[in-house]
Amino acid sequence: MIMSRIEAPRDEDDAAAAATSGPAPAVPGTLVDRLLAGLPADSVLTDPDITTSYANDMASFCPAGAPAVVVLPRTVEDVRHVMRTATELRVPVVPQGARTGLSGGANATDGCVVLSLTKMDRILEIDPVDRVAVVEPGVVNAALSRAVNEHGLYYPPDPSSWEMCTIGGNIGTASGGLCCVKYGVTAEYVLGLDVVLADGRLMSTGRRTAKGVAGYDLTRLFVGSEGSLGIVVRAVLALRPKPPEQLVLAAEFASASAACDAICKIMEGGHVPSLLELMDRTTVKAVNDLAHMGLPETTEALLLAAFDTADPAADLAAVGALCEAAGATQVVPADDAAESELLLQARRLSLTALEAVKGTTMIDDVCVPRSRLGDMLEGIERIAAKYDLTIGVCAHAGDGNTHPTVCFDAQDPDESRRARESFDEIMGLGLELGGTITGEHGVGVLKKEWLAREIGPVGLEMQRAVKQVFDPLGILNPGKLF
Amino acid sequence: MIMSRIEAPRDEDDAAAAATSGPAPAVPGTLVDRLLAGLPADSVLTDPDITTSYANDMASFCPAGAPAVVVLPRTVEDVRHVMRTATELRVPVVPQGARTGLSGGANATDGCVVLSLTKMDRILEIDPVDRVAVVEPGVVNAALSRAVNEHGLYYPPDPSSWEMCTIGGNIGTASGGLCCVKYGVTAEYVLGLDVVLADGRLMSTGRRTAKGVAGYDLTRLFVGSEGSLGIVVRAVLALRPKPPEQLVLAAEFASASAACDAICKIMEGGHVPSLLELMDRTTVKAVNDLAHMGLPETTEALLLAAFDTADPAADLAAVGALCEAAGATQVVPADDAAESELLLQARRLSLTALEAVKGTTMIDDVCVPRSRLGDMLEGIERIAAKYDLTIGVCAHAGDGNTHPTVCFDAQDPDESRRARESFDEIMGLGLELGGTITGEHGVGVLKKEWLAREIGPVGLEMQRAVKQVFDPLGILNPGKLF
Repeated sequence: MIMSRIEAPRDEDDAAAAATSGPAPAVPGTLVDRLLAGLPADSVLTDPDITTSYANDMASFCPAGAPAVVVLPRTVEDVRHVMRTATELRVPVVPQGARTGLSGGANATDGCVVLSLTKMDRILEIDPVDRVAVVEPGVVNAALSRAVNEHGLYYPPDPSSWEMCTIGGNIGTASGGLCCVKYGVTAEYVLGLDVVLADGRLMSTGRRTAKGVAGYDLTRLFVGSEGSLGIVVRAVLALRPKPPEQLVLAAEFASASAACDAICKIMEGGHVPSLLELMDRTTVKAVNDLAHMGLPETTEALLLAAFDTADPAADLAAVGALCEAAGATQVVPADDAAESELLLQARRLSLTALEAVKGTTMIDDVCVPRSRLGDMLEGIERIAAKYDLTIGVCAHAGDGNTHPTVCFDAQDPDESRRARESFDEIMGLGLELGGTITGEHGVGVLKKEWLAREIGPVGLEMQRAVKQVFDPLGILNPGKLF
Repeated sequence: MIMSRIEAPRDEDDAAAAATSGPAPAVPGTLVDRLLAGLPADSVLTDPDITTSYANDMASFCPAGAPAVVVLPRTVEDVRHVMRTATELRVPVVPQGARTGLSGGANATDGCVVLSLTKMDRILEIDPVDRVAVVEPGVVNAALSRAVNEHGLYYPPDPSSWEMCTIGGNIGTASGGLCCVKYGVTAEYVLGLDVVLADGRLMSTGRRTAKGVAGYDLTRLFVGSEGSLGIVVRAVLALRPKPPEQLVLAAEFASASAACDAICKIMEGGHVPSLLELMDRTTVKAVNDLAHMGLPETTEALLLAAFDTADPAADLAAVGALCEAAGATQVVPADDAAESELLLQARRLSLTALEAVKGTTMIDDVCVPRSRLGDMLEGIERIAAKYDLTIGVCAHAGDGNTHPTVCFDAQDPDESRRARESFDEIMGLGLELGGTITGEHGVGVLKKEWLAREIGPVGLEMQRAVKQVFDPLGILNPGKLF
């Protein structure tokens, strides 16, 4: 299925002729030849040792095929050539960013073209008056954040993988992060897109203005579409002014329900924290074991709240009082940015620490109405007991977005089976509580059977019909979402 | 075309039989009979004197047809019955809210069913912990605003017509208002929808959680779709905590370009006003003439800025200094809410005052990157001179969203022609400056020829294909948008 360029030397005339002669069978060699007819040789990778390394994102339990070829486009024209070729040959295309996704949405399918957008990584413009940035899809989230910071600006979306993940990937999954409780998710920062369609045509959506309602909001349709509708090659992103440095408070609770009660009181009280995170007992213990952070082992739930307001100390005092009223056993407000950073380290270490428990984790991403967070945590504990598993929960608690993390030994088939079953049961619980199966990680391969349960048969039918409009041949990231 | 119930008495058995016997020709009488088979008699209006009054929204220059019947559903089932009937009989359906729109998006087409959602006006739920409201589409914007206020909450979108317009209409046009510079438009507050599809099936989109990425964002696709994809029968809206009372500052400038310079400096300086509005000389004069407000006639541009922060006086002082640096001839900060209200009155009177100039106005809605606002105002002045017309501009300046308002005598055919031509030329200018033909009023009938110019042939083709998915028979608000 894979043929390197050396085995099948390029013939420009043949390839050019073939490119205009309409659909042709997708026989080995032809694909790579056609790609090379319009791309620099070093953009087309065919060595199986290399292409195999592009097969997966970071999700567990998600099958991945062997790519026929990996293309690293550098220009919009490169991408158009790939899509024209793929359409002609009816070859599936799997777009990829940094492959930090957690749902298998970027996993290769057998014989596909992996389209890695990581080399299209230019920040084209940062405008402090219009408060927009114009970027290529391969720009790393942290690189953009730092660049706009130098202009006194702020690009809020901050997935945990922000030092690696790309803006294109963030757009594909509409990713969130810690900031969302105050600043919302990626979707709210995408004003306009340039998209290469399945057949290679270029379409612009949206705008660079602050407002605009000319026609259907195709921009938002593409955000979160996991590469299944087209290839984003350029994005106009909204920026905000850089807020003051945030100050963090940690509150320890003797029960998860008391912590959830505090969260409800904080939100009901009209507070707008820049971060409101929860770690359960299991997570606290895992972090302690890994990093010896000296968190009290008696802690059943640790709440972290932050404010980036004009007077964060006053806001922390008000929230601290609410935590105490809800039964916090200890409330520790940071005095400065350095102390705040220390308090956040525990949260940042959570997933690594949970991974260390059993070697492998499955990170769920169920979001419930925040008023149901207590029920969610209680239910997860029940599920962990039922399946005899360690399930740690850290949560973007202010959003009701939990990451129940199932710790298991992937070498143990029975434990692996129980892990997968508990993972599903957690999604079922989320739906029962009026929530969604995915708050920010996307559906990918991992949750596609669950999508239908969440959105129902009519919704599913309409979603499939929309997919059909943009991808009539079904070549764009097939097997994902549906 | 119109036949009242008395002329064609209802026969329940016949109607029920007809309803299950598949498509039938749309002969007069049949439509009303079928509707009455599933609706209370007082929900179906057929008196031409009454139905004619539902023909138009508030736009000038937009053709409107004669409705065959006006239906005022009270339940989701009522709406489903209307859509099933319309699908069977292939009759166009024009959904309407309060008909305060300014693009003809709610104008009737000949022989259509006008589906007025105004009787579905219940606020079903307000939840201060989850910060959501669940409403029917006919809820008036101001009624919702006041109701959530009582819970310490805030529903920001505030179109000028907020005392009349409905949430369903706001969703249909993704409407904005004065608050958008800080709080964004309606689109950012719609979490989930229940939609009756063209064939009467019910579909739920989105969620009630703070985050969610399960499948394509069909919620956003419906927001701003001007009733052309389905009928919104229920919406889950995001709310914010009620901010502190805002304090307003007025700054007078001796030139529009100085005012625009101040706007750029304010935004570049990282300020986040809760309102940043501009009135040009023509508007100031019109308001003075109408209401004798004593605004200095020497004012070439009046800027209003407001802050609803913890320390609005400090923010106003900073912004006032920027205005002075940009050449403001006078800066007047309000001391309290009452004074702030007085300053805002001039802005609120703008459109009424401009209407008084010549009897009729055409209100444009061009949004440009805010850095191009100065060029936009200069260009509008040039266009006014070219067509020998009075064109007043008030603008949501912080968003770059201008409302150039062409004042003309509708009895004068030549002046009317010039008004229409200048209106179009203003849209052309907006596009040249990197803007959009509509920031918040929508495309409707008024701007549909311009939509293609803005989004291009590929975009238009894909938008039409999306329409086709949801409305294969073309019965939903036909002739709008495209």
